[in-house]
Amino acid sequence: MSDYAAQALRGSKLAGAKLIRFLEDDDPRGVEGLKLLFPHTGRAYILGITGPAGAGKSTLIDRVVSVLRTRKLKVGVIAIDPSSPFSGGAVLGDRIRMQRHAGDEGVFVRSMATRGRLGGLARTTNETALVLDAMGYEVIVVETVGVGQDELEIAELAHTTAVICVPGLGDDIQAIKAGILEIGEVFAVNKADQAGADETVTQLLGMLGMRGHTERGWRPPVIKTCAMKDEGLVAFVDACMAHRKYLSESGRLKQRVLARDLHLFKELVKQMVYEKIFATPSAGGEELRTLMEDVQLRKIDPRSAAEQAVRGIHCGTMP
Amino acid sequence: MSDYAAQALRGSKLAGAKLIRFLEDDDPRGVEGLKLLFPHTGRAYILGITGPAGAGKSTLIDRVVSVLRTRKLKVGVIAIDPSSPFSGGAVLGDRIRMQRHAGDEGVFVRSMATRGRLGGLARTTNETALVLDAMGYEVIVVETVGVGQDELEIAELAHTTAVICVPGLGDDIQAIKAGILEIGEVFAVNKADQAGADETVTQLLGMLGMRGHTERGWRPPVIKTCAMKDEGLVAFVDACMAHRKYLSESGRLKQRVLARDLHLFKELVKQMVYEKIFATPSAGGEELRTLMEDVQLRKIDPRSAAEQAVRGIHCGTMP
Repeated sequence: MSDYAAQALRGSKLAGAKLIRFLEDDDPRGVEGLKLLFPHTGRAYILGITGPAGAGKSTLIDRVVSVLRTRKLKVGVIAIDPSSPFSGGAVLGDRIRMQRHAGDEGVFVRSMATRGRLGGLARTTNETALVLDAMGYEVIVVETVGVGQDELEIAELAHTTAVICVPGLGDDIQAIKAGILEIGEVFAVNKADQAGADETVTQLLGMLGMRGHTERGWRPPVIKTCAMKDEGLVAFVDACMAHRKYLSESGRLKQRVLARDLHLFKELVKQMVYEKIFATPSAGGEELRTLMEDVQLRKIDPRSAAEQAVRGIHCGTMP
Repeated sequence: MSDYAAQALRGSKLAGAKLIRFLEDDDPRGVEGLKLLFPHTGRAYILGITGPAGAGKSTLIDRVVSVLRTRKLKVGVIAIDPSSPFSGGAVLGDRIRMQRHAGDEGVFVRSMATRGRLGGLARTTNETALVLDAMGYEVIVVETVGVGQDELEIAELAHTTAVICVPGLGDDIQAIKAGILEIGEVFAVNKADQAGADETVTQLLGMLGMRGHTERGWRPPVIKTCAMKDEGLVAFVDACMAHRKYLSESGRLKQRVLARDLHLFKELVKQMVYEKIFATPSAGGEELRTLMEDVQLRKIDPRSAAEQAVRGIHCGTMP
């Protein structure tokens, strides 16, 4: 058995971190370890926390971790940084913020960036969550920023998606544009000591009332919090846990896990098949090469060229 | 010749909008039209404008359009809305904002959302830009929000990426996290009538000085603007045009167009091959079906399953 996997299962953060890095880097030791860890997954509760920059997500998460620790729950935190196309790296911000939990054996913080060849943030986040799950972290908090395609996929990974707003949000058409209303299952109005907090709660409740997509049996609650002053966090955590209970009792929790696994499988197949085709000049054949040249000469538009290329590519099991 | 394409080439906005819709919806009339339009593309200058929510991008773009119109340039605007996973639609915000240009024959505004089966926002934005280009729009302004993977791909589509900041940004670690510094070729500090504008300019210049990625021969300028008061917009447009000149004279403009077309081609091939594999149960073969079932039963982790599946799939030209 892989040493790293065995050590991670016994709780070694160092071994867990190594495995996560291998998975990010597409080092074969990563998938080897994941195979061994996988039977131990499926137990963790994954809480996604999202919201606009400046809403105070990191401070709130820091306090949420404290609340969960007082309940003796082991907590993993996955902080998503938008990848920089140049540095490719996560910055230190989240690690700095989370430092007061650094000495706590029951907390594991990991910053992510898009890495590796096999797809983006959603894949690495998913696999990191699996590793933390196997290591016995009972709640995994995933922090995302913004509402890009990556974030929507990560929202699908979470069992509960909590959206953090701030007072004044309701006035701004950006709030509606952001599309975050639709994905939230629990809402927090953070910085609730600022003017307009109650109005924002009212506006949110109003907008949520109009939302046609509320799952039957669950009405998203709106909680006032002030993370800096340590206020409202217990109510917020309770609201998330209530949603978990709802999912579990309605059978939706299991559904979500299975849908997520299948989605990840298909995405990986897509990427790997793509690489097979373009990996060697011969794989795609003469026609593919010619078409790529034609695209480069602007003789043909990319979509028409792709349609022609795919007609010529045979895909299926070996005869 | 497709009626829509012919009419679009003669400048019909209605026909252009139809073609864009067909491309979004993967209606075959879209790609048919694109094929006819493609020889007429490659002339437009594509200006990407990005920055955090609340930076005043939409107002700034509205004013930029006015400046470009006084220069007798035809302008297309593509406003990206983060897609809502539920509504799938763009909201009206940008259209409302841009209404004062609505009666101007030389301005075409289009709001986008992720649509269609063939990939996300980057693909539809790219193809929409091609349609506008063929229709004779000389400058195409692409507005994005946030810095997700989609936005980075859209930044690659643009010839110049302008980043809109606001005073106070420099104090915030979010600014660095956001990763937008690396992609900017022109910077605007908007709302420059607010306190701290000069400090923000200084901080930005300092951070840009540290940035190791400045292309040789181009130093990103930082322009103070106040879009609401119509100040600084001429200088901003001039800075963008100077970057265009730099790209064109250094040969980088052509490079970017070609790299973009090839990237789009490969992405489309990836998506189409994927669909071929999963479209019919027989395409992927018995093994693929079994693996999908095993994933659903959580007998195997998604990555190991994908690796096994791809080993069994033959991809290449028909013998």
